[in-house]
Amino acid sequence: MAFLHPDYLLSNPTASRLYHGTAEPLPIIDYHNHLSPKEIAENHIYPNLTEVWLSGDHYKWRGMRWAGVAESHITGNADPFEKFQAWARTVPKLLRNPLHAWTHMELRRYFGIDLLLSEHTAKEIWDEANRQLAQMPVRSMLARYRVALVGTTDDPADNLQHHHALDKEFRAGKTNLRMAPTFRPDMAHNALGDPQAWNTWVGRLEDAADLRVDSLESLIGALAKARLEFAVAGAKASDHGLSRLPDCEPDAKLAASAVRKALKGEVPIQHERDALTLEVLNATAKWNHAEGWTMQLHLNPLRNVNRRLLAAVGADAGCDVMGDERQVNGLARFLGGLDEEGHLPQTILYNLNPADNQLFAVLAGAFQGSGANAGHVQWGSAWWFLDQEDGMRRQIDDLSNLGQLSAFVGMLTDSRSPLSFVRHEMFRRILCDMVGKDAESGRIPDDQELLADLVSRACYGNAKDYFGFGIHPSFG
Amino acid sequence: MAFLHPDYLLSNPTASRLYHGTAEPLPIIDYHNHLSPKEIAENHIYPNLTEVWLSGDHYKWRGMRWAGVAESHITGNADPFEKFQAWARTVPKLLRNPLHAWTHMELRRYFGIDLLLSEHTAKEIWDEANRQLAQMPVRSMLARYRVALVGTTDDPADNLQHHHALDKEFRAGKTNLRMAPTFRPDMAHNALGDPQAWNTWVGRLEDAADLRVDSLESLIGALAKARLEFAVAGAKASDHGLSRLPDCEPDAKLAASAVRKALKGEVPIQHERDALTLEVLNATAKWNHAEGWTMQLHLNPLRNVNRRLLAAVGADAGCDVMGDERQVNGLARFLGGLDEEGHLPQTILYNLNPADNQLFAVLAGAFQGSGANAGHVQWGSAWWFLDQEDGMRRQIDDLSNLGQLSAFVGMLTDSRSPLSFVRHEMFRRILCDMVGKDAESGRIPDDQELLADLVSRACYGNAKDYFGFGIHPSFG
Amino acid sequence: MAFLHPDYLLSNPTASRLYHGTAEPLPIIDYHNHLSPKEIAENHIYPNLTEVWLSGDHYKWRGMRWAGVAESHITGNADPFEKFQAWARTVPKLLRNPLHAWTHMELRRYFGIDLLLSEHTAKEIWDEANRQLAQMPVRSMLARYRVALVGTTDDPADNLQHHHALDKEFRAGKTNLRMAPTFRPDMAHNALGDPQAWNTWVGRLEDAADLRVDSLESLIGALAKARLEFAVAGAKASDHGLSRLPDCEPDAKLAASAVRKALKGEVPIQHERDALTLEVLNATAKWNHAEGWTMQLHLNPLRNVNRRLLAAVGADAGCDVMGDERQVNGLARFLGGLDEEGHLPQTILYNLNPADNQLFAVLAGAFQGSGANAGHVQWGSAWWFLDQEDGMRRQIDDLSNLGQLSAFVGMLTDSRSPLSFVRHEMFRRILCDMVGKDAESGRIPDDQELLADLVSRACYGNAKDYFGFGIHPSFG
Repeated sequence: MAFLHPDYLLSNPTASRLYHGTAEPLPIIDYHNHLSPKEIAENHIYPNLTEVWLSGDHYKWRGMRWAGVAESHITGNADPFEKFQAWARTVPKLLRNPLHAWTHMELRRYFGIDLLLSEHTAKEIWDEANRQLAQMPVRSMLARYRVALVGTTDDPADNLQHHHALDKEFRAGKTNLRMAPTFRPDMAHNALGDPQAWNTWVGRLEDAADLRVDSLESLIGALAKARLEFAVAGAKASDHGLSRLPDCEPDAKLAASAVRKALKGEVPIQHERDALTLEVLNATAKWNHAEGWTMQLHLNPLRNVNRRLLAAVGADAGCDVMGDERQVNGLARFLGGLDEEGHLPQTILYNLNPADNQLFAVLAGAFQGSGANAGHVQWGSAWWFLDQEDGMRRQIDDLSNLGQLSAFVGMLTDSRSPLSFVRHEMFRRILCDMVGKDAESGRIPDDQELLADLVSRACYGNAKDYFGFGIHPSFG
Repeated sequence: MAFLHPDYLLSNPTASRLYHGTAEPLPIIDYHNHLSPKEIAENHIYPNLTEVWLSGDHYKWRGMRWAGVAESHITGNADPFEKFQAWARTVPKLLRNPLHAWTHMELRRYFGIDLLLSEHTAKEIWDEANRQLAQMPVRSMLARYRVALVGTTDDPADNLQHHHALDKEFRAGKTNLRMAPTFRPDMAHNALGDPQAWNTWVGRLEDAADLRVDSLESLIGALAKARLEFAVAGAKASDHGLSRLPDCEPDAKLAASAVRKALKGEVPIQHERDALTLEVLNATAKWNHAEGWTMQLHLNPLRNVNRRLLAAVGADAGCDVMGDERQVNGLARFLGGLDEEGHLPQTILYNLNPADNQLFAVLAGAFQGSGANAGHVQWGSAWWFLDQEDGMRRQIDDLSNLGQLSAFVGMLTDSRSPLSFVRHEMFRRILCDMVGKDAESGRIPDDQELLADLVSRACYGNAKDYFGFGIHPSFG
Repeated sequence: MAFLHPDYLLSNPTASRLYHGTAEPLPIIDYHNHLSPKEIAENHIYPNLTEVWLSGDHYKWRGMRWAGVAESHITGNADPFEKFQAWARTVPKLLRNPLHAWTHMELRRYFGIDLLLSEHTAKEIWDEANRQLAQMPVRSMLARYRVALVGTTDDPADNLQHHHALDKEFRAGKTNLRMAPTFRPDMAHNALGDPQAWNTWVGRLEDAADLRVDSLESLIGALAKARLEFAVAGAKASDHGLSRLPDCEPDAKLAASAVRKALKGEVPIQHERDALTLEVLNATAKWNHAEGWTMQLHLNPLRNVNRRLLAAVGADAGCDVMGDERQVNGLARFLGGLDEEGHLPQTILYNLNPADNQLFAVLAGAFQGSGANAGHVQWGSAWWFLDQEDGMRRQIDDLSNLGQLSAFVGMLTDSRSPLSFVRHEMFRRILCDMVGKDAESGRIPDDQELLADLVSRACYGNAKDYFGFGIHPSFG
């Protein structure tokens, strides 16, 4: 079959029918990503492919480094076309890597270019894509895949002006796109190892909240006040990235001590840091629960293991890795504590290490029934390194076997690139393929209505109902 | 293909021939389950489907909670038909979950009902199944799948009168079904965190053994005496459920201290609890070895993580999860110690976390040769959460690659429901499918006799030879 | 299809074309194995099949023990034909285990015998194979698969005379086979738990290096001097086997203390042992980096868990297992330290526990770009227990998804047997099957040149370029 043919990943007729008939036309609720609010609010036009593809994508940077490209042509001073050429030389070496499929899907879906990218085609593709980019503002990219909502990831100290600006357009009927911020207070605890960075951030938070932070109480108070701004801007979720939930009981005294030390420029001990982590997470969880928001927990990265690159390029340079921290005891204790007190919000658990797949799926099942709805606690989509065909298939299979696929809120991009919505297409094709295969082999009933309902929920309906973002009616 | 068609899960002609010709007609030795000895001895008739399906099945409870069913309709006071309706509404949401397949296999195999269960068919199925249940005592359910032996799971303090009652019938030629108890002394160490529960249990043990327990020695002595009762009742195995084997050397003094503290109503420290765990396990292992019994180790659950449900419903409510305790060091030390002293009994290792699959398969291989027979140490069947198609395929593949499929004692239900023997059918179909596929692709010789022998051993013959239960000759 | 038919493992026409047209004829660079330098230098003739197959192969010993063969017929005093008969009886019980496929591939490829080995054919195969063995010196076995290089595994204290002898023949144009030693200084730290063994080894090292070892400095100095001998003998790599990299900073004082204690016959504490491990590894890494050698890290075995067998048979008796030590923190710290100081050599990371597959693949990606070449840090081939179809497929898939298959240095035997090169054949078939399947399904472009280049690199070209062994020009 031709590369990326119309039935790509759809290995059976039922799958093809489900995808083209049901999944493909559905809108997208991309409830967690790292898109730029500014670029969306201003409907940014990217000057060239390097800008939109390579300027912030550490997936591609890793691919280029593995292929032996010099850092000057990755994050360094080479000019945009030189960087693009380096990428073009890398792409043929990425056969079987998701970057290879994504790259060509993006060229086809957004630009109608079905050439294979290589050093031989680099110039032709560069010219044609750049020509089109001049007429392709970011929101038209989103519209290509019927994106109804963009859930950005934002620091409590961030100014939400761009969200307000888009919201104003939305209310005025000038756009059907929603953009909701996500409350991500990680700096409050993750930066404790670097008191200078932590205090700089606290200063920004004080400005944003217009409150002095001189204690645990005032830190939590400032976060609470910042959170109200997020609510006004349409937020429906918080997000938290950490290596693991500390396996200890909350201890406000220790957490207060962490804050005092950090304010003085000292690094708190691990117990204090863990205590502050729990205070921030528990406070956020309760706010979430009170307002029907969703809490997202992204667990088990190990950050910045390559100190040379960290120094040269900064964080998010492509040298974070999977951790092998033990997850279940701390997480079960955390969820159990909230549940026991009646404060467990809707929660999505994401694991970065696939060895924890089944662990997470099963754990989610132990905390259902805290809310009245289906899938109160979710095991989230294959994430980051796992966001590829094999990772998605394993997650869908493990969720099906150990949990409930029909309640799944589905895919998200987690991406910095407005072209990355091809990943939703990949997810939908894979989902349809798996469901179709099961139906055709007699594992599940070959009842088109039942199957279409399952697919439709996991691609769009569940996310719409679960988060309550208030999608524009034009999306159905 | 139609849902659950005759060649369900059998993707190739060799598989179909192996299943229908060899595996399907074989009897079942269900050497580990949680069926009720009383119901089997009394040949219980279930009043309705809710009683036989929903009254004790935490797999289904988890499915219902995930679908948003209220607890009143799961473990609460709703009437039996209301609960059944709630289950019927849940089933279509379980597509791709093993509960969906099992439910419909059970309706077909036991009741000849091939409707899809949903709220629309709930009443019709309820009426028809209940009508049939009135003429379907539990032993006729077992006979449907040619069950030759039921291995129940019993506390040392349990009265074994029901086992004796059935045994009397067996000896009198009135039934060909055997029911053997399994000696499971978990309470002796697992309950140490709750001294009141521990002492209540010790009181029951004292009554059962007619011995006073006031020390480590007398505790082990009471267990030894209780075990003799199990031997009389036909037991051939012990069973142990714990998070992990403690990675320390046995220490009788610490264990004695654990007993003293617990008798006084205190919670022993972890080292003492670990020491008592090892004393109980080592003593049981030696008894097992001396009498040719089998020791089963079920490892890595984390129990009762949802304290709200534990308080409301009790243990086994569906809120146990997979643990991520490190397994190998403690387990290797334990097995190595027994082996070195010449006391290593036949042992079956079960892992709950599939990330440990290969670890367990390889470890089993390091302790073969302690006995004269093949497969002295077994890596057990996919268990609990892993008891589904994917879990079974992985276990069969990993065992094949890292150990010896031909020596495998095969499948068990581990179930509380007398209808759950469809799981043996699922296992047999999967096994035949995998063997058939390998033969048809040239991975193994396409020699029907060789293949049939392999399948026959792993489905029945090995379990018959390994445990030595004394199956009724009518089963062959 | 017939057992082991010509398109064995090749499920699609593209795969068949890639294998037979590209992969099959390529030479083999077996850069890591445990072949005997003496036997190769002397071009040894094996007296019988037991000698070449069973005398040192703990894979087969494990299979025989699992099948219930007595130790006398495995490692004991039974005569060679009795042992072979025991193996012949075992083979049919190994269906679906890689030993079954390897055994028959070896009989076919080396001896042209296509009988199935069993007790019935044992005598016929024994006679025919032994007849052929008399005319089949070890180098002719290697030539059967076009082996261009054998990378043996050697202790710093080993005499490298056999490597020199073969090298002399190579330089004189009498053979096109290269044999390079690999510098494996494990004893320096792994033997610290047994001071007598450690001091015996130190004595051997002193003799080999002609240096007195009385301190950390002189120990490292003796290793350095020994390493020079390896360089002269054509070595291009070091190799290190350990359970995990210690997660601590280097500490020369603690390491020096370890050496002092061990010299006095004492067992150093764990911190000291870890410190010495890091000193040895860091020193070797820097030497490797300076000379363009490759460092191989084989991680997470747990050795000799069966003490009975260790006492009876010695190390490497088949009772090592997979460990479940946490890997990533120590490893990331070690690689990060070397990288930061500019000393990170080409490195290959091998994990024994497949639960760590993705962890290792991702970690390798964080340290690319230290060198100018592609794949500076490699995630190594499926190793030891994982060296079978499923293990290889998972490794190839995980490497493709998370890293870069096109830069992969590919397969090695890690074997003690000169007949084990069928494993390269198995790897090549699997690789071609996977690449072909992706091309035929439209996942990657169906461009024969591109695919052949990918396969050719991963089977031969990358290893040739990466290690720089100086392969004989006749191999291309």
